[in-house]
Amino acid sequence: MAEKNRQIFVVKLPKGQLDETTFESRESAAPEPGDGEALVRTIYLSLDAANRAWMQGATYKAPVLEGEVMHGGCIGRVVKSNAPGLREGDIVECMSGWQEYSLQRPQTAMKLEPKGPLTHYMSVLGVTGLTAYFGLLEVGRPKQGDVLVVSAAAGAVGNVVGQISKIKGCRVVGIAGSDPKCEWLKNDLGFDETINYKSQNVAVKLRRLCPDGIDVYFDNTGGDILEACLFQMKMHGRIACCGVVSQYDTATPAAGPRGVPGLLVVKRLRMEGFIVMDYYSKREQAITEIAGWIKQA
Amino acid sequence: MAEKNRQIFVVKLPKGQLDETTFESRESAAPEPGDGEALVRTIYLSLDAANRAWMQGATYKAPVLEGEVMHGGCIGRVVKSNAPGLREGDIVECMSGWQEYSLQRPQTAMKLEPKGPLTHYMSVLGVTGLTAYFGLLEVGRPKQGDVLVVSAAAGAVGNVVGQISKIKGCRVVGIAGSDPKCEWLKNDLGFDETINYKSQNVAVKLRRLCPDGIDVYFDNTGGDILEACLFQMKMHGRIACCGVVSQYDTATPAAGPRGVPGLLVVKRLRMEGFIVMDYYSKREQAITEIAGWIKQA
Repeated sequence: MAEKNRQIFVVKLPKGQLDETTFESRESAAPEPGDGEALVRTIYLSLDAANRAWMQGATYKAPVLEGEVMHGGCIGRVVKSNAPGLREGDIVECMSGWQEYSLQRPQTAMKLEPKGPLTHYMSVLGVTGLTAYFGLLEVGRPKQGDVLVVSAAAGAVGNVVGQISKIKGCRVVGIAGSDPKCEWLKNDLGFDETINYKSQNVAVKLRRLCPDGIDVYFDNTGGDILEACLFQMKMHGRIACCGVVSQYDTATPAAGPRGVPGLLVVKRLRMEGFIVMDYYSKREQAITEIAGWIKQA
Repeated sequence: MAEKNRQIFVVKLPKGQLDETTFESRESAAPEPGDGEALVRTIYLSLDAANRAWMQGATYKAPVLEGEVMHGGCIGRVVKSNAPGLREGDIVECMSGWQEYSLQRPQTAMKLEPKGPLTHYMSVLGVTGLTAYFGLLEVGRPKQGDVLVVSAAAGAVGNVVGQISKIKGCRVVGIAGSDPKCEWLKNDLGFDETINYKSQNVAVKLRRLCPDGIDVYFDNTGGDILEACLFQMKMHGRIACCGVVSQYDTATPAAGPRGVPGLLVVKRLRMEGFIVMDYYSKREQAITEIAGWIKQA
């Protein structure tokens, strides 16, 4: 007898902010895997800011459409397989959508051989940790002694950016949205300084905390915080553009930041976007290095 | 007896657009060079869009202040010298300001050994030509077969960008402000396509002329044209930020372009500013290469 499959459907795409009419929970029987398919049971589902961006239209993947199961990535276990290379019991990372069971094929499910707790593959060794790793090291390229600022610093990507930056010998300033978050960054994660953007003026605080300017800004937010950082960048600074969380949950995205492109010219800044998947050829290597850091911590 | 020195002073910094109250022409005696100084007579004065930017405040150099001789670069001849290494008759490039005579020191006057007509050093072999050369090759990095778009294409920098891009095997689209300019670009300089931004919709025309997207956009304008190009960039495209002529002659600069940073992330774009002087260690090499192209043309 088939298992029950709880599924979260997008029944109405949001115009402005998400509300209780956006999603609907339904139950159906878990599907039977066809030829070349495997049935995967979701263990951990990743809820990311990017999920919201996918509802706005095409990004780096197909947009979420009304009537679909909400898109999302998970770590799951193969529970039945007619797919070559996927065996019952295998642990995989895949785009399951927001549901308990999904059908996958060998090319849509990446096998994991966990080097630590499975939850690490939802964080520091998973998509968000690798996003931090590659965006920081390949795009931001911090050097020993650099001043690094990261926004959404207490988020899944931001907190890892800050921690790797400390390993690389940077002075790290994190921007986050509450005092407890800021305290966590400073006391538990070793950030040098923090700014609570909800209670403090980011531009004024940046001038005080980074009087000689910012070498690397890791941008998770876009909008006003990006603009404030732009004006405080140091000559030849680098901005790694990772995401735009300030603009996802709205129907009226803000204008672009002032200072683009004027400040880029005057200060010779490089601003560069990236998507973690572009670096997946170096994934194993990165996981090994991060796992090493975890061991030393 | 000292020569007369015609000088253009900035008597009132513009708030909005320049007008007839901005400058004043005066005459005085040419100054006597002191110890370590040389008197340089201006031969050609370079009038550039950047001059206007210097009036807005600090850029990559000190701002123009009220009461000063207007800043500007020239090619001149040393007519009297108490400076080691500068001899009467030497041809130099220097920041003379808008005047017929200026005092220079060895570190402020760069000696030229002209490889062609002196006017080439005001254009293709001078600051504007080198700006095109380094910005295109070091920042834009076009590859054979790339689609390249350049704004202010009929300007001193833009027209050279287009011509070097053709040499490098690109398909070149120039954006300029009049039909005669567009005809010149296409018929005389070999641009593949042009857009008259004053009579045509740039975004619509770009979609038609670059249906598969833009690989390299060389941005001289910022503003609306930058925004239109951003939306038409190809995955992994590059934007070389050279100047912002759309925003110089105004007191109310436009907001930044929409799509920053969202499109940078989704399309993995690199946007990078530069200043030609940063590449002056490779200047002789560049001049030799450009002079070679001129000979072959």
